[in-house]
Amino acid sequence: MGEHALIARIRARLPQAPGFVVVGIGDDAAVVAPERNLLEVLTTDCQVEDVHFDRTFVGAADIGHKALAVNLSDLAAMGAAPRVALLSLVLPAAFPVSSVDALVDGMAALAARARVFIVGGNIARSPGPLIVDVTVTGSVHRRRVLTRGGAHAGDELYVTGTLGGAALGLRTLQDDPASGGVAVERYRRPEPRTRFGLMLGRNRAARACIDLSDGLADGVRQIGEASGLGAIIDAGALPIEEGATLRDALAGGEDYELLFAVSPRMRSRLRHARRLVSDLAVTRIGRLTSDRAMLLSRNGSLEELPAGFAHFS
Amino acid sequence: MGEHALIARIRARLPQAPGFVVVGIGDDAAVVAPERNLLEVLTTDCQVEDVHFDRTFVGAADIGHKALAVNLSDLAAMGAAPRVALLSLVLPAAFPVSSVDALVDGMAALAARARVFIVGGNIARSPGPLIVDVTVTGSVHRRRVLTRGGAHAGDELYVTGTLGGAALGLRTLQDDPASGGVAVERYRRPEPRTRFGLMLGRNRAARACIDLSDGLADGVRQIGEASGLGAIIDAGALPIEEGATLRDALAGGEDYELLFAVSPRMRSRLRHARRLVSDLAVTRIGRLTSDRAMLLSRNGSLEELPAGFAHFS
Repeated sequence: MGEHALIARIRARLPQAPGFVVVGIGDDAAVVAPERNLLEVLTTDCQVEDVHFDRTFVGAADIGHKALAVNLSDLAAMGAAPRVALLSLVLPAAFPVSSVDALVDGMAALAARARVFIVGGNIARSPGPLIVDVTVTGSVHRRRVLTRGGAHAGDELYVTGTLGGAALGLRTLQDDPASGGVAVERYRRPEPRTRFGLMLGRNRAARACIDLSDGLADGVRQIGEASGLGAIIDAGALPIEEGATLRDALAGGEDYELLFAVSPRMRSRLRHARRLVSDLAVTRIGRLTSDRAMLLSRNGSLEELPAGFAHFS
Repeated sequence: MGEHALIARIRARLPQAPGFVVVGIGDDAAVVAPERNLLEVLTTDCQVEDVHFDRTFVGAADIGHKALAVNLSDLAAMGAAPRVALLSLVLPAAFPVSSVDALVDGMAALAARARVFIVGGNIARSPGPLIVDVTVTGSVHRRRVLTRGGAHAGDELYVTGTLGGAALGLRTLQDDPASGGVAVERYRRPEPRTRFGLMLGRNRAARACIDLSDGLADGVRQIGEASGLGAIIDAGALPIEEGATLRDALAGGEDYELLFAVSPRMRSRLRHARRLVSDLAVTRIGRLTSDRAMLLSRNGSLEELPAGFAHFS
């Protein structure tokens, strides 16, 4: 199938674009009307075969879901509402059209729930791995932007959901590609915390926020570095996924939960945000310190917080 | 070198972002203030090793230049002014840091000339080819958007610059990786027609426009299909690069010139746009017809216009 025919096929599987999309898929570029008085948030993230996923136990629909989810997670960490997405596919010659369909359908199902519209993209041939690169834009009020910086010493650190599930799920699939269960779903279909990120920003409950792509320890270090602070994490308080280890939670990566810093004086704002997104657990796991050491409190003693998962070394 | 260190290194090679960039490289996403009363144009395009380039005769700086240039060319074809870019790098393990530097420098030099700012991106590891995926945004007035559709029967077709040079350059390099010259530069360092695209849109001289990534014949077919028209191209009128063949011009691809349709009543507007961008050749090469056939007039007889270069089949 030629490039133009494949683009037409993908376009036919996607819902019609809303009115703010002036030119959608099929021209040299997409054209959209910006949201008045809001800032635009832009992020891109790439899923690479044999680095981020293994096609023997991750289906095309899962890949489509995850390639969008990891970008939506970045928007959530900024407190932004998703708006439009661009899909760049680099396809091996042997990748069947039915798998392109499944990939697009997996992405489109999440896109519909997140109210983000795929308005364009690109298709190229790959001499090797399947690569799915997604760019997403969102919008946010200027005073509601959440960054990694801006936290103060004494702020309390919280995480959404559970930790370590994705690492456990990956290990489970590596042992047996046919296995299923909660952890496997956490790995295959991470759920971006879009609504909660929006609430944290609207409420101005959080002073700093990051999404956990490379493990809790990496996230804590990123917020600490950006804010010029250290941290003490309480190992006993971590909401570890059933069956996962402390190491999975700290350094496993790919949980895509939000880690954020809240001033003790803003706990009531946080309570309000939690009531609005009541199906999501939120757990206090430590605090930021003026001393820049990164520490883990475990069984009554303090140790160095381990490094996170390194994608690239 | 770890991912965070590499991001910091890239950031240090880029110019400081302008005031409309609220959050730049280094957070979960970039945040920018949109331009008031303008539409936003978004495009993404990907350069894949051994599909789009061969590292034995294309340097890292060339790859960086071209990965941005092909996106800027898409913006030019929409009549949009470039604004910000995201750079997604998928790097083989053996790709040296000095080559990352060169790639970023090649991209940054073009970015500075085009006044586009790299505000974010992503770095991933590749199990095989080097992949450089760039997303660019631009801005345009609602009534100045150039699309592929909107042309009328009787409109005249024009191209900027010369055709076939990139195909000739590629062939020259394949024969001798050490060769140089005009055609080789055309292939390695395509020049996006940003200023002329802007003039065409501002002037409302063109009714339809596309950039030539897959050869003239493909571009003519795209405008024809989007506008519901056929075309007659005059082979003798084509501004073929010295040494290139008619086939290079029609189906060679990668020239990144603009092909556009002008109503005969708007020739004076086109003349005005040409005066403002006087260093760029603009050549009339044919016209659009209500009969939907795609024809090439050659040596006094009409034949079917050949298909363009197919990236994907």
